[in-house]
Amino acid sequence: MTTPLTRHGAMIKLRPEKEADYRQLHADVWPSVRDALTRANISNYSIFLRDGVLFSYFEYRGRDLETDLRTALADDGVRGWLTLTDACQVPIASASDGEWWAPAEELFHLD
Amino acid sequence: MTTPLTRHGAMIKLRPEKEADYRQLHADVWPSVRDALTRANISNYSIFLRDGVLFSYFEYRGRDLETDLRTALADDGVRGWLTLTDACQVPIASASDGEWWAPAEELFHLD
Repeated sequence: MTTPLTRHGAMIKLRPEKEADYRQLHADVWPSVRDALTRANISNYSIFLRDGVLFSYFEYRGRDLETDLRTALADDGVRGWLTLTDACQVPIASASDGEWWAPAEELFHLD
Repeated sequence: MTTPLTRHGAMIKLRPEKEADYRQLHADVWPSVRDALTRANISNYSIFLRDGVLFSYFEYRGRDLETDLRTALADDGVRGWLTLTDACQVPIASASDGEWWAPAEELFHLD
């Protein structure tokens, strides 16, 4: 049975005063973070910026994204990384309580 | 020589009163539009929606995106399609004069 591929888009705001820090972090993402994402079955992950809004796109080839993300979050490197990047971000106005990156709906896909 | 792959993200707003039309169009994109995109060396193209903002992600494997897009725009099907979808969209506030989908900057990528 082939593991299904799903695509995930999400949005969050970048704090203007933290843009330089965020760029610097992402110019050289820690290997532990890259490895944890790969182990979480996440690939082809990009983050884009326009007008202070970040949007992300990644592909997930696994059976349980929530569990895979929870495992990734147990990694010390990932936790340290998120301490730094979370300080750069603010959830968008419509995000649910406790929601960080706000998921978007895929309306269209062409392979 | 391998043709380079580039990734493209962009944003545009969806007119609230046109959301249903836009969804219906994208639930069944015209084959001529899909074919023209493929001929334009565009693949893995997704459009996401959150809070009235559309963001797109696609991959381009070619040497001259501008020329390839111009060729796609010469297709009658594509022109007809864009007449319908353009009526659903409004450029974001910071878009340049004449700019439709406003390009975003890729800050991070993980293969």
